[in-house]
Amino acid sequence: MPSDRPIGVFDSGVGGLTVLKELRKQLPGESTVYLGDEARMPYGEREAAEVVLFTRQAIRWLAANADPKLVVVACNTATAVALEVVREESGVPIIGVVRPGAAAALSATSRRAIGVLATRLTVRSGAYYRALRDLDPLVDVLQQPCPTLVPLIEAGKARSEEARAAVRQYMAPLLSEGAVVAPGVDTVLLGCTHYPLMRWAIEEIAGPSVRVVDSATTTTLAVREVLASHGALSRASSAEHRVFATGERERPRAVARAMFEEDVEVEEATLS
Amino acid sequence: MPSDRPIGVFDSGVGGLTVLKELRKQLPGESTVYLGDEARMPYGEREAAEVVLFTRQAIRWLAANADPKLVVVACNTATAVALEVVREESGVPIIGVVRPGAAAALSATSRRAIGVLATRLTVRSGAYYRALRDLDPLVDVLQQPCPTLVPLIEAGKARSEEARAAVRQYMAPLLSEGAVVAPGVDTVLLGCTHYPLMRWAIEEIAGPSVRVVDSATTTTLAVREVLASHGALSRASSAEHRVFATGERERPRAVARAMFEEDVEVEEATLS
Repeated sequence: MPSDRPIGVFDSGVGGLTVLKELRKQLPGESTVYLGDEARMPYGEREAAEVVLFTRQAIRWLAANADPKLVVVACNTATAVALEVVREESGVPIIGVVRPGAAAALSATSRRAIGVLATRLTVRSGAYYRALRDLDPLVDVLQQPCPTLVPLIEAGKARSEEARAAVRQYMAPLLSEGAVVAPGVDTVLLGCTHYPLMRWAIEEIAGPSVRVVDSATTTTLAVREVLASHGALSRASSAEHRVFATGERERPRAVARAMFEEDVEVEEATLS
Repeated sequence: MPSDRPIGVFDSGVGGLTVLKELRKQLPGESTVYLGDEARMPYGEREAAEVVLFTRQAIRWLAANADPKLVVVACNTATAVALEVVREESGVPIIGVVRPGAAAALSATSRRAIGVLATRLTVRSGAYYRALRDLDPLVDVLQQPCPTLVPLIEAGKARSEEARAAVRQYMAPLLSEGAVVAPGVDTVLLGCTHYPLMRWAIEEIAGPSVRVVDSATTTTLAVREVLASHGALSRASSAEHRVFATGERERPRAVARAMFEEDVEVEEATLS
């Protein structure tokens, strides 16, 4: 595995940019190629078989167009339903975000009561429930599907009153007032890589006693360790970053520009 | 990398058993070979060059006697000063515990104020400071050397009043009363794999508002992802576990028996 090949990062849309940002911060010598499947997002309301097909197409597109040394499936929905399939087919290591997210949440909880905000398909897959219970059979896991959040974020409304209202509604069952697990969860896991873009509202509504965690730090840990184990960490002092999207390119460009505080060219990709 | 080879785990003494326990829980199909260098512990008060030499000897011993597919250096001191050296020399992937511990602590903190309890050599190496600051340049890190804890634990006094008193003294600078970072840290990272054996006292003195985290969960995440990336996760339904120690074998046997709730044979090893 030549160390100078890029890391591929795939998401249904702009959510994976939150993982890309952490990768770029922690591994500044690594070049990256990002692919967002804007044309077919959101994945979270689709059937599992569709998401498996789209993920497979994305991995193949990255292999053909970027020759990555490793691919991060920076989409919880795709990780939850397609990771094992694409791992078996791929010639390069593939890292998902569910197990890293679960490890982060277990590190954060003290009362072993974790709320997971995720898409409907991720919740339905049970992937987070299994990953968390594998780590700690005694942990309480409350999963909350949040079907409107990804569409709001992709529409550029992450900082709107509409977003705050949606978060308030989704979080109510996890917090002390209406919680199944009294006195509510002490940790909220952002089980979708889009949700860090709405962290402001989630933290505001969760309050200071609840820890809000995402998978970016632990996913990057996994990427670093896997590359190191293959002797494939880049030795370069600078890196190149390319961003591709299917369909709409102006919206991801605006999100990427705000996130990386620099102009980002979004190139066109076609998946089939 | 054949999937049926064991995972090697190395520590200066019994501390790494806390990592072994998590590995066995999360990866029940994986066989393990544990090596504790009882004869020469504690490492934390030694010179860095000695620890590099001992770690190199341990990795070589595991290679010659257990043919592991991967080795976990389950000792923070050895990770801090020797990981890069032994990684370059080794034919198999080597996973340390410092970066996984740092990722766990960053997932747990909400006020970005982390206390690190560690051996004197780990503190002096700056490894945790660098790993935490790499992850978050704005995090406050308070490192506290705890030179008496490993000797107390190895002497079977992890649950003594003496242990509680030592922990109280070491933790004081991290907590609100005397803290440099007012109002004290919100997360205490156990930066030595022995310290989870004293978690009862550390949590008691830290109080309910401080999260106490260790590196076992995130280290196991790294092991799983590295093995998966090499197609080397075991497909076995059962596993074999062997424990070796240099020098004293009765004390490690007693600790292992209490931890795994079964009789554990500790075999003799000689490092040179």
